[in-house]
Amino acid sequence: MADSLNCHLESLSPLELFERVTEQGEKVRALKAGKAPKDEIDAAVRMLLSLKLSYKTTTGQDYQAGLPPKDLVLMNNGTSKEEEEDFVDPWNVQTSNAKGVDYDKLIVRFGSSKIDTDLINRIERATGQKPHRFLRRGIFFSHRDMDQILDAYENKKSFYLYTGRGPSSQAMHIGHLIQFIFAKWLQEVFDVPLIIQLTDDEKYLWKDLTTEKAYEYAKENAKDLIACGFDINKTFIFSDLDYLGTSTGFYKNIVKVQKHVTFNQVKGIFGFTDSDCIGKISFPAIQAAPSFSSSFPQIFNGKENIQCLIPCGIDQDPYFRMTRDVAPRIGLPKPALLHSVFFPALQGAQTKMSASDPNSSIFLTDTPKQIKTKINKHAFSGGRDTIEEHRKYGGNCDVDVSFMYLTFFLEDDDRLEQLKQAYTSGELLTGELKKVLIETLQPFVAAHQERRKQITDEMVKQFMTPRKLAFDF
Amino acid sequence: MADSLNCHLESLSPLELFERVTEQGEKVRALKAGKAPKDEIDAAVRMLLSLKLSYKTTTGQDYQAGLPPKDLVLMNNGTSKEEEEDFVDPWNVQTSNAKGVDYDKLIVRFGSSKIDTDLINRIERATGQKPHRFLRRGIFFSHRDMDQILDAYENKKSFYLYTGRGPSSQAMHIGHLIQFIFAKWLQEVFDVPLIIQLTDDEKYLWKDLTTEKAYEYAKENAKDLIACGFDINKTFIFSDLDYLGTSTGFYKNIVKVQKHVTFNQVKGIFGFTDSDCIGKISFPAIQAAPSFSSSFPQIFNGKENIQCLIPCGIDQDPYFRMTRDVAPRIGLPKPALLHSVFFPALQGAQTKMSASDPNSSIFLTDTPKQIKTKINKHAFSGGRDTIEEHRKYGGNCDVDVSFMYLTFFLEDDDRLEQLKQAYTSGELLTGELKKVLIETLQPFVAAHQERRKQITDEMVKQFMTPRKLAFDF
Repeated sequence: MADSLNCHLESLSPLELFERVTEQGEKVRALKAGKAPKDEIDAAVRMLLSLKLSYKTTTGQDYQAGLPPKDLVLMNNGTSKEEEEDFVDPWNVQTSNAKGVDYDKLIVRFGSSKIDTDLINRIERATGQKPHRFLRRGIFFSHRDMDQILDAYENKKSFYLYTGRGPSSQAMHIGHLIQFIFAKWLQEVFDVPLIIQLTDDEKYLWKDLTTEKAYEYAKENAKDLIACGFDINKTFIFSDLDYLGTSTGFYKNIVKVQKHVTFNQVKGIFGFTDSDCIGKISFPAIQAAPSFSSSFPQIFNGKENIQCLIPCGIDQDPYFRMTRDVAPRIGLPKPALLHSVFFPALQGAQTKMSASDPNSSIFLTDTPKQIKTKINKHAFSGGRDTIEEHRKYGGNCDVDVSFMYLTFFLEDDDRLEQLKQAYTSGELLTGELKKVLIETLQPFVAAHQERRKQITDEMVKQFMTPRKLAFDF
Repeated sequence: MADSLNCHLESLSPLELFERVTEQGEKVRALKAGKAPKDEIDAAVRMLLSLKLSYKTTTGQDYQAGLPPKDLVLMNNGTSKEEEEDFVDPWNVQTSNAKGVDYDKLIVRFGSSKIDTDLINRIERATGQKPHRFLRRGIFFSHRDMDQILDAYENKKSFYLYTGRGPSSQAMHIGHLIQFIFAKWLQEVFDVPLIIQLTDDEKYLWKDLTTEKAYEYAKENAKDLIACGFDINKTFIFSDLDYLGTSTGFYKNIVKVQKHVTFNQVKGIFGFTDSDCIGKISFPAIQAAPSFSSSFPQIFNGKENIQCLIPCGIDQDPYFRMTRDVAPRIGLPKPALLHSVFFPALQGAQTKMSASDPNSSIFLTDTPKQIKTKINKHAFSGGRDTIEEHRKYGGNCDVDVSFMYLTFFLEDDDRLEQLKQAYTSGELLTGELKKVLIETLQPFVAAHQERRKQITDEMVKQFMTPRKLAFDF
């Protein structure tokens, strides 16, 4: 029996071994959590180590949780095996680098394309508008099939924008607005419909929330989104809990996606386990379905071949890699994508901002005083320890969070460049740089709050009512 | 490593071992299907045998596909380990006994209650009506919480009926009507709403069908159901593909069930594997949700505590065991159940009738001549080989399919008893018994066809329109 077991492990594919290691890791955690007898835990740990060894022997690399061997292969095009890798999925972002995630590597690993100067110039020519600062500064840095969107656009073939948000709490931070600020710009320069999905069902499934509370958060969050200034005649915002029961087109696309994705696949892509609820396991189809215009018959007149463009954080790419894989098999067009970098936490670019830690972010509800205090107290500085050293050696903009935030929110390119040079040379001190950021964010947040106050429940209801928009399809 | 692996297998629970055997079995099948190298297949088979041995050592029983150890434990209350067991799940029914499945054992195994004379008498008292022949003859033989339904009913608290059908093809056979004939009787004697779910999404997921075709079958099947004579003011028929997109209450209940059932659970209950699509894995929640009145706000005025009674084949019980397990955790009442036996195939009671084998059943579209030919040619006989032997020893009604069919369709108790005695004594020959069946089924099917002809697309549309019924809640 022992021989056949050994024999058996040797014959497993890298992916099967990966799955075995993952399962065994879960088992060990479960045993520990359940305070199982020591010898039982020891046996399970030995088994885990053996499996990891087999994995290393087969793949030539150490096992990394959440990174199936397929990704490892992609990842290793051109990079060294030994280097430590960033970890990115829809729920976790981890890097050991203070500059943040290595996005060039992520492009190679995810198999997407870099948004290069040529593409930016092409967008400028197609729209006749100066590219948004998020494009000029590499904040939207990666894409899939944006050239196809432009090909079609230049031939007068329209498309639509789709993005979304998981409404986990009433508090949104400024990082949450990045994709909406960009979506608004895209909507204006291309003059296309925008569809925003609020995944209240996802939040119900993942968090300790009732469906009523999740739906309430969705409507509250919708106010912050509407306050970005979207045109009600061109924008449809929906909650899954609400819209799924009002559109047969949407459910039909969900079930089509669900038929063409196996548990093995979502396990590989999202790291689900056998202990996850069936709601989580089937949820990816619900985030996938708005990529298809037939999910919105009222907007697209029942047409199912209108191309979709999704501006989103790169962490959401796994959902849409899955969607793009399924699309041709259900006879529908693949959505195109524009990926943004992560918005860094005040404490540094090693992690994504978190709505659950009030000091990790500037919230849209913060007062001018709170903004000032948070930035002065928590914004990680790339400056030197003493004024003398700073004057002599200068600050490091690559890791300075105040400077990073300015690249997101300061519109004036020349001013940003001046600040960079002055800070790098040591002429500008950390306190002075922070002051510029405070003076940029205070009016930005105040203006947002002012607009948000004007948003009534009635307006939210209008935005969330399925209806025809100001476009003919 | 070998030691720790052995050690490891020894420390697994019966359920974990069961899952390992199941996985390994799939692996072997996949290797064989993929024409893998012989030594690889051999190694996998050796591993499978080892795992089965460990399973037997731990549980004291042979591994049986689809029967997790929890069921085995239940099953063994009062039955011998060595005896061969029937296999019953929503997709397969297997027994080696010509009399059919041993239903008394199934009651013990599933943990349901027998419908005994006391309960039948109580139904008669509560409704003031003679019990339906399906109750008198043990065709509906098992229940869950029917006493609670009657307690409440006697206190003027109403309930509703829910049953369903998977519309896999246009052809329905007489066995498909059993639960609808019974639902109609229940509806009439209790005067309650009836809700019929057509799981066209399930058929899309399981079969090689488009969503359009599945929906078309649903509408065609609805005609056969309506032809049973349901009152349009008291009956709502819906297709999942259609209704899910028109009722927010329904989706909310689906996602609630999905949050409270893990993949491990549906694997144990339904035998799903990692290679199954996420649509199948999450489908049980869609069959569960109509058990809750809040799935039909238009009928129940938004009330979520109206009790549900489900008449169904015993093979559907796994869905509702799951539902009853989840119900208290989402604050909703458990549905009550009435279980029917299987309708036997013409060839004998060892298997369930199959819509895919035209000779296994009497179809609702069969002509009088086809009915006659099928019964004469295919109905398994419990008679003797020669007339002489038959006269001498008599026939066996327990295995005679014609007699079984008569228990389903011949209303007259005295006549049925006379036939039984005459056949058992040898007085009545097989051909004569078959003639009685032919003369019973020909007018039954002809009358159904006559009523079905009257059902227009418009009537189907009315039955399938979400609306208030003739009840106030």
